[in-house]
Amino acid sequence: MTRRVAIIGAGPSGLAQLHAFEQARAAGADVPELVCFEKQSDWGGLWNYTWRSGLDEHGDPCHGSMYRYLWSNGPKECLEFADYTFEEHFGRPIPSFPPRAVLEDYILGRAKKSGVRRHIRFDTAVRWVDHDPQSDTFRLTVEDLEQGVSRDEEFDHVIVATGHFSIPNVPSYPGFEQFPGRILHSHDFRDSQEFTGKDILVVGSSYSAEDIALQTRKYGAKSVTISYRSAAMGFPWPEGIDEVPGIDRVEGRTVTFVDGTTRDVDAIILCTGYRHHFPFVATPLRLVTANVLYPPDLYKGIFWTANPKMMYLSMQDQYYTFTMFDAEAWYARDVVLGRITLPGRAEMDADIAAWRAREAALDGPMDDIDFQADHIADLLAAVDYPAFDLDLTREQFKTWEHHKTESIVGYRDRAFSSPCTGTPAPIHHTAWWEALDDSLPTFLDQRETTSAS
Amino acid sequence: MTRRVAIIGAGPSGLAQLHAFEQARAAGADVPELVCFEKQSDWGGLWNYTWRSGLDEHGDPCHGSMYRYLWSNGPKECLEFADYTFEEHFGRPIPSFPPRAVLEDYILGRAKKSGVRRHIRFDTAVRWVDHDPQSDTFRLTVEDLEQGVSRDEEFDHVIVATGHFSIPNVPSYPGFEQFPGRILHSHDFRDSQEFTGKDILVVGSSYSAEDIALQTRKYGAKSVTISYRSAAMGFPWPEGIDEVPGIDRVEGRTVTFVDGTTRDVDAIILCTGYRHHFPFVATPLRLVTANVLYPPDLYKGIFWTANPKMMYLSMQDQYYTFTMFDAEAWYARDVVLGRITLPGRAEMDADIAAWRAREAALDGPMDDIDFQADHIADLLAAVDYPAFDLDLTREQFKTWEHHKTESIVGYRDRAFSSPCTGTPAPIHHTAWWEALDDSLPTFLDQRETTSAS
Repeated sequence: MTRRVAIIGAGPSGLAQLHAFEQARAAGADVPELVCFEKQSDWGGLWNYTWRSGLDEHGDPCHGSMYRYLWSNGPKECLEFADYTFEEHFGRPIPSFPPRAVLEDYILGRAKKSGVRRHIRFDTAVRWVDHDPQSDTFRLTVEDLEQGVSRDEEFDHVIVATGHFSIPNVPSYPGFEQFPGRILHSHDFRDSQEFTGKDILVVGSSYSAEDIALQTRKYGAKSVTISYRSAAMGFPWPEGIDEVPGIDRVEGRTVTFVDGTTRDVDAIILCTGYRHHFPFVATPLRLVTANVLYPPDLYKGIFWTANPKMMYLSMQDQYYTFTMFDAEAWYARDVVLGRITLPGRAEMDADIAAWRAREAALDGPMDDIDFQADHIADLLAAVDYPAFDLDLTREQFKTWEHHKTESIVGYRDRAFSSPCTGTPAPIHHTAWWEALDDSLPTFLDQRETTSAS
Repeated sequence: MTRRVAIIGAGPSGLAQLHAFEQARAAGADVPELVCFEKQSDWGGLWNYTWRSGLDEHGDPCHGSMYRYLWSNGPKECLEFADYTFEEHFGRPIPSFPPRAVLEDYILGRAKKSGVRRHIRFDTAVRWVDHDPQSDTFRLTVEDLEQGVSRDEEFDHVIVATGHFSIPNVPSYPGFEQFPGRILHSHDFRDSQEFTGKDILVVGSSYSAEDIALQTRKYGAKSVTISYRSAAMGFPWPEGIDEVPGIDRVEGRTVTFVDGTTRDVDAIILCTGYRHHFPFVATPLRLVTANVLYPPDLYKGIFWTANPKMMYLSMQDQYYTFTMFDAEAWYARDVVLGRITLPGRAEMDADIAAWRAREAALDGPMDDIDFQADHIADLLAAVDYPAFDLDLTREQFKTWEHHKTESIVGYRDRAFSSPCTGTPAPIHHTAWWEALDDSLPTFLDQRETTSAS
């Protein structure tokens, strides 16, 4: 009987997994039946922008967390597919910090070339995943969301690729129930122009807080106050943005912070992170983790040690994104194909413990970057993923961190060289702080060639 | 072995069901074990107001659809508990159209008196309901949301009381992806003051559209345009509100309607209804219905004909609310207790067909009211629910419809008499259109006694 592999989610990770299998098939491997379940009506995961928020058209939690005018906040060189470069996709080098639509176009370009769409069942939600020890198979309860009909299917392997930036972590503060304006999590944030002319409170101190504070101000918010919970980000903020400590309470539209200062605000945007949330997975198979570089119970960051035929992709806190997803997808594929044999439970547990001990001793972003690069190198050493200059990307990430410290509004105007082709990126034709149009045609017009010459 | 009954949801319907069983127990009946699963951390269902929208603190769909400054849109006399009157709860008569907090206080008052809280497992979601024909029991996969742990439990009966005003029906229109402002469903609407000074588009022509249009204008929206899809509501709207046909397309902030007219708006509120949505119920047990007065496949509006130990409460389109929930809960209880024996499948199907044929021939709200009153009378004839003047409530609903046609901002200033005690309600101290404070203390202060004397 043909073995069956279930892949849950057709975003960057799920597509990387399908692509990895297709590459093996093209090289002559005997690939199991692949079924990718995607609850959205199209592929791309988070990159598939939607105006919807809260619940989607099927009444399920909306997967999308992206908002309009989102530009990459890291250099595209550090997420480039080694087997499908930006230069191949766009026919020429492009600047280092593309907007969402450009990155989506790139991700989908490889998936189209690879022909993986035929494996995907769209508008289909996985309601429950359990394991039957008798048959050593997984039972998935899946629902055709268009028909509203559920049924069970059996699989030999399950690969969870549902991401961890879709389910918001939403704290509450005294007075929220009476706040006379909108309170939202960044998951539901869609268009900065809603906040033009308003006084905004942004809660948080990570990427979302940084980006939404800048963006709302860029698009005309009157003022942006960032309330940090543990430590300020401390970037050189432009005029109109500043940081204050945590919220103590809210009375009417007046927010009092723990240092006793107050601000009157019109809206509160909670950039308070996301949760690793797998309500469709039975407890014995369910990953429980905070957002860390090396989650517990996943050998190589992938294999659920209690049952390694259950896999999770991209559940790490991420510097590297697509590059890491590829490394994990290739490794997972080779285990499924029998090219790599996993060690016993004790050895897996010891290996995870060693990585986690090292993570516990890391001291700041520069260490984090090396740690994640080492994790990727560890995976790539075992698979046939094309060579690229991983060490260059370590340095690029570190340079990028310095650029951010120098200018939080200007770091996206820098350019890096491809770790795959060596080609330097052109400088974009418009400084990011001035660029209000984030469309693909505007980004890709040829002006940057002229200005860089 | 003790029989076990699962009740899913601790809102008005689930609490009515628990209360009905407690009344029987108090009268000496041998009552099965009751377990009520509630995913929220407190009881009251929709009446348990939350500032949250989208996803809740557990990452599950937020149950709450209520917003600040919501007042009952029907006379409280038409939803009065016959065994726990408003006069008993508040110690005196109160006006006919209370705000949310007052009705919540009333619902919970009976539940507290009845002592049903001990049966409820809070922060617990039902992930899956299936039936095992071998044992003739239901298997529920339930998750403790605080612990993140799921497990299976067996029950002899399942009563679904999850409501049908929590999962929004959200249409899309051309141009929504580029609209430079907020687009939300009324499910996520919380505070009108977010829209003060703005030009608002409300889409829909039922209760939510009517109420949110009025409320946003009452709290200072600059203008409210209501776009109907089939027919205009046609109420005598106050200045600043008017009705236009359906949306053709949106370009920037300009909305073009199917009659070619346009409006520039700052926000779009979709009051486009809710879906009967039971993603946790296996297909063979899952109710599939539009919002109608007599759903298909439910005998007496309650019993899933393919397996009548599976029950649904309050899945009807509603004029009557709590009164109908009580009638259904008493009837369901008496079937579980063996006091009422259900007929065979053919007889059940024929009975449903007759009611549905009658519904198909109804001509407008006056007919609808009589139909639903007849449905309730049919249930009450078989149970020991205390007597009250059901025929009076029919007339009150019809009078209320006339009041609405006469004055959509003034109908809540009218007063009706209790169908249980006969006591006339006092007139509220402040006209609804002027009353900006919807708190319980303000509503219950004694001024109305003075003004009515």
